[in-house]
Amino acid sequence: MKSVKLIGVGTALPGNPVPNSKMEEVFGLREDWIDLMIGTKTRHFAVDLDEKVVKFQLLDLAYEAAQKAITRAGFTNDEIDLIVMSTATPDHLMPATVNLVADRLGMNQIPTYEIQAGCSGAIQGLEVAYRFLLTGAFTNALVIGGDVCNKYMSFRRDFKKLRSSELINLALFGDGAGAAVLSTGSEYDGINIEHIVNRFEGLNREPGQMMNWFGLQESPEEGKKVQSAKEDYKAIERDVPVMAKEMLVELLEKLQCPAESVDHYLPPQLGGHMTDRIVQSLELDSAKTINCVAETGNNGNALPYLQLEQLIDRMKPGEKAVCIAIESSKWIKTGMALVKEEAK
Amino acid sequence: MKSVKLIGVGTALPGNPVPNSKMEEVFGLREDWIDLMIGTKTRHFAVDLDEKVVKFQLLDLAYEAAQKAITRAGFTNDEIDLIVMSTATPDHLMPATVNLVADRLGMNQIPTYEIQAGCSGAIQGLEVAYRFLLTGAFTNALVIGGDVCNKYMSFRRDFKKLRSSELINLALFGDGAGAAVLSTGSEYDGINIEHIVNRFEGLNREPGQMMNWFGLQESPEEGKKVQSAKEDYKAIERDVPVMAKEMLVELLEKLQCPAESVDHYLPPQLGGHMTDRIVQSLELDSAKTINCVAETGNNGNALPYLQLEQLIDRMKPGEKAVCIAIESSKWIKTGMALVKEEAK
Repeated sequence: MKSVKLIGVGTALPGNPVPNSKMEEVFGLREDWIDLMIGTKTRHFAVDLDEKVVKFQLLDLAYEAAQKAITRAGFTNDEIDLIVMSTATPDHLMPATVNLVADRLGMNQIPTYEIQAGCSGAIQGLEVAYRFLLTGAFTNALVIGGDVCNKYMSFRRDFKKLRSSELINLALFGDGAGAAVLSTGSEYDGINIEHIVNRFEGLNREPGQMMNWFGLQESPEEGKKVQSAKEDYKAIERDVPVMAKEMLVELLEKLQCPAESVDHYLPPQLGGHMTDRIVQSLELDSAKTINCVAETGNNGNALPYLQLEQLIDRMKPGEKAVCIAIESSKWIKTGMALVKEEAK
Repeated sequence: MKSVKLIGVGTALPGNPVPNSKMEEVFGLREDWIDLMIGTKTRHFAVDLDEKVVKFQLLDLAYEAAQKAITRAGFTNDEIDLIVMSTATPDHLMPATVNLVADRLGMNQIPTYEIQAGCSGAIQGLEVAYRFLLTGAFTNALVIGGDVCNKYMSFRRDFKKLRSSELINLALFGDGAGAAVLSTGSEYDGINIEHIVNRFEGLNREPGQMMNWFGLQESPEEGKKVQSAKEDYKAIERDVPVMAKEMLVELLEKLQCPAESVDHYLPPQLGGHMTDRIVQSLELDSAKTINCVAETGNNGNALPYLQLEQLIDRMKPGEKAVCIAIESSKWIKTGMALVKEEAK
């Protein structure tokens, strides 16, 4: 079987970090409540909160992250023969945003795929590229993940009237994109993808998170309104650490090594405090964990790439890393085990 | 290399066929104009046009088609170890509809993927499942495609004010879902997937089709409105037959056989007349082609499954089939070559 390597990673965050004081000013979300309950300090938004104007499309962020990843991998754009993108918040229903990104990157005559997914999307996208490369039909894949939450953030709304299950999304989420180049070329240095696991386990369980395009507030049926985003934070707090633990155990078994032999942990990043609790409950050495959510907000499909961007600089030959992402929408558990080869 | 077989196909169409006379009554689209320009006679809608109520979600249709496909394949639901769904019109941004379908089918602990795509989606979904099966990591995949166009069909609108580039979508499209079971199990009878091709070729080309969730008519920015669906019918008429021809030539080369040795053709199904023109321009024997769009409307991700459902009953051992789908959104060319093994 071929081996698939992660060669280069790039990310893009829109505008300046938005502090909690600004969240209070714009959305009426109390600064001390966000600090206390969520623990996320700043995030980036694709909309300008003062001008109330969309400044970045998903396309813009995805393009920027992708071009950085390709350049850092030492590739040229015409060496890419497959693109897989994941997002929960595409710019349009059609065309899929991945095709607009391909166009802007000057790519043509290659397969493009877009995965619709939330927090599990980055690892799902990496898995699709990984398996396509394993078949030998393709050599160099560009994988992109990103989200811009303005799809459900209409500024025409009175935020003071939103329910807590909707408001909490504003405190949790942020916008951004990330990308990576994967290759089966044996001539490149990189991090080997040893295992990827992606598993739906939402049977007979209510979704922990729902999101609709903001228009669905006004459904096609006269007078019928639907909440555009909804979060069952209690269920998420209860179940995500358990699912993360199960995924950790599974990946350690696959790697056939104890937890202390893993050199880097990339845990799920739902919010600042929740990540701290997960790191504690997994009994991870916090010096070994790579976190970013307190600064970036939960930017969904982008987030694991922000962690991988730090990992790729830190990881030394012979080291192992474990990355876990949990999607609470309909309960999806994903994880990835990475190993950097000993120097030749 | 393993071989991947198509074992069973199922489809679902909502409600009764809607004739052009009804389209005139509800949308003010002239019946004789649809006959003359589009050539589609009936279609099915997930909304009740009289009551103006959504009767079927994508989930409902996808579930029905999936359950039929599994039953016809002679499988039980717990034998499926991978689900891939494709759609342009998911029920929500999160969770991906595929996960709601998995739940209703009683499935759990398996990977689920949802591809965001238009007319190329069915073949993209089949390709993802095909390549996952080729790696040997999975054995029996359920692949689903479907669309329900009520995402951009708000009944609160005055249809008389719509532009032609938007109105034409109502005449072209319909709703539905289809599904297939693919397997690498050598014990099953089925149709071998010999080749799948999926290629973006939208570099420097304007989209031929755009679709936004209907809410985007009212963008997050105050007072800014965006057309929810847009069609460049002239570009589609000009370019789709050319792309279909190129894909046909490519698949015949891969099969290493002349056009007359292929026993069944499943051509692109954009509208009744356009399909007729494509069949003519490809110089296909019309007795060998499987068409359905004049009766079902263009139901996007469902449509190739409606053709495959007819094919699977007709195809005899030793026969060959070619299936082509073209997506005009950002110009994607897809095709598939199928061969039924000689009886053992």
